[in-house]
Amino acid sequence: MHLLVLGAAGMIGAKLMNRLARDGRLGGREIETATLADIVLPNAPANAPFPVRALACDVADRAALDDLVAEAPDVIVHLAAIVSGEAEADFEKGYRVNLDGTRALLEAIRAVGSGYRPRLVFASSIATFGAPLPEPIPDTHHLTPLTSYGTQKAIGELLLSDYTRRGFVDGIGLRLPTICVRPGRPNKAASGFFSSIIREPLAGEEAVLPVSEDVRHWHASPRAAVGFLIHAAGLSSDAIGPHRNLTMPGVSVTVAEQIEALRRVAGDAVAARIRREPDPAIAAMIATWPRAFEASRAQALGFVAEDDFDAIIRVHVEDELGGRVG
Amino acid sequence: MHLLVLGAAGMIGAKLMNRLARDGRLGGREIETATLADIVLPNAPANAPFPVRALACDVADRAALDDLVAEAPDVIVHLAAIVSGEAEADFEKGYRVNLDGTRALLEAIRAVGSGYRPRLVFASSIATFGAPLPEPIPDTHHLTPLTSYGTQKAIGELLLSDYTRRGFVDGIGLRLPTICVRPGRPNKAASGFFSSIIREPLAGEEAVLPVSEDVRHWHASPRAAVGFLIHAAGLSSDAIGPHRNLTMPGVSVTVAEQIEALRRVAGDAVAARIRREPDPAIAAMIATWPRAFEASRAQALGFVAEDDFDAIIRVHVEDELGGRVG
Repeated sequence: MHLLVLGAAGMIGAKLMNRLARDGRLGGREIETATLADIVLPNAPANAPFPVRALACDVADRAALDDLVAEAPDVIVHLAAIVSGEAEADFEKGYRVNLDGTRALLEAIRAVGSGYRPRLVFASSIATFGAPLPEPIPDTHHLTPLTSYGTQKAIGELLLSDYTRRGFVDGIGLRLPTICVRPGRPNKAASGFFSSIIREPLAGEEAVLPVSEDVRHWHASPRAAVGFLIHAAGLSSDAIGPHRNLTMPGVSVTVAEQIEALRRVAGDAVAARIRREPDPAIAAMIATWPRAFEASRAQALGFVAEDDFDAIIRVHVEDELGGRVG
Repeated sequence: MHLLVLGAAGMIGAKLMNRLARDGRLGGREIETATLADIVLPNAPANAPFPVRALACDVADRAALDDLVAEAPDVIVHLAAIVSGEAEADFEKGYRVNLDGTRALLEAIRAVGSGYRPRLVFASSIATFGAPLPEPIPDTHHLTPLTSYGTQKAIGELLLSDYTRRGFVDGIGLRLPTICVRPGRPNKAASGFFSSIIREPLAGEEAVLPVSEDVRHWHASPRAAVGFLIHAAGLSSDAIGPHRNLTMPGVSVTVAEQIEALRRVAGDAVAARIRREPDPAIAAMIATWPRAFEASRAQALGFVAEDDFDAIIRVHVEDELGGRVG
């Protein structure tokens, strides 16, 4: 089978390809070739048992998408997006990439015709939900995004459903939890502290906690997110049914529970590297975010996240720190 | 105040303008001028106490919208749409008018700048909901359209919310019930029989009922729909709150209850003019449609529909038949 990954230069795209280079298979079939595309040149995974072509192109551009889709990939993983903060700061850029880009991809697929109907795995987000919200949020709760990014993802979900219903594509949308622990350096995302209060103390550095410890949120590890994408690529269309978008499972914890988990995994000295520095602007934003989901449909379809936040920390220690804690 | 109505040549647009020609006011303010636009030339209402300009233009075209919005109307009522059956038959036309047209309108408004922020009343639809559905459907139920028309309306709702949140427009979206009794000749819409089983017998003609009498659906009269639009034009933005789209109130009745109401209003002889002729294709389609809503938010905001189906029939008799029954 031929795999196309859009937005392959990002953290999740890179981890997905590293895993697939080990597996050699996707959706029960051998990977014969993979094409990786992003606005910057994606890295090809090391030691892949299949040929990998990496391309730098504007994956929101219809002509570029026509070229990529002309090769009739069997599975397309669509990760390309302008992230939340940038889509809020640059209204037009967010709509161009996150809405027009997703629609251009669907139109490029539809234009192939001749019964071409690839599995399209679309990375949506829990940013499609905004306050007021019940706790936990059921699978049938309406989408009420409070950011342009969340709006664009919600529209992508609707398009994915309609193009699937019309028989132009075989789509599945995954509302990803906040990915934690995000590797790399701290960034300016409002959600960044959820990762940095774990990542920096484990690296011997101080982290800043800008909200109170009773803030609750919905997390899954990068490894779990890669597992969601791979599982989605292989699910039968009949099993998914007419509602093509699914809230992914995750772990609902408070910041206090995150810190307790860090203490259990890495000890008091590590957990002591968190400095409380309340930021009312961040606290106000986080107050509108989802805290917990049922994710019943995704679980019934076999999507699996971590059982608790200790497991999320252990994934980070294993995958990023070579198993070393302290 | 200056009013702009897009899609003014349709049945609801014409009834809205007739009512406003009588009222002379909208949202507590005197109407100083009204602009009516549609793909075919709208009729100006008789005896309006304000000047009316009627235009035939493509109201999905950005240049036409720029011209219309350049006059900075205070209230814009956006009724223009390709209807459900046609949007399903012509995929590209439906997306062009219902999605691109709505977005072009929002972009035209945003482009005015200088603090211009008109009240935009957007006609959405209960076609944004599709099976499986609870009964009644709460205001927090997710949108699960099973038609391209419903998808396009759901996307319009999301755009309306985001453009409102960003301060570019002051939007409110109304999910209209199936309008019953629709005046005029029978059409090919799958929902047409809900009106024709009332309208034709009252006009002395036979009507065909293609579904079983236990089919339940959500109705409001054309007069109620006009009332929703007028009420929406005058609601304060604070009262609406961050969720800008509302399911309108209606009357949930079975076909048997519709026929009983017809018997009560017009007698046995009229009700006997309905011929049962089951059509499995129509029955299968109707089975995915919503049957009843809570519409709690809209009711709390003062939107009012009829109390029962008898009242819906009486509206038709008063407004279309000069009060004559039989």
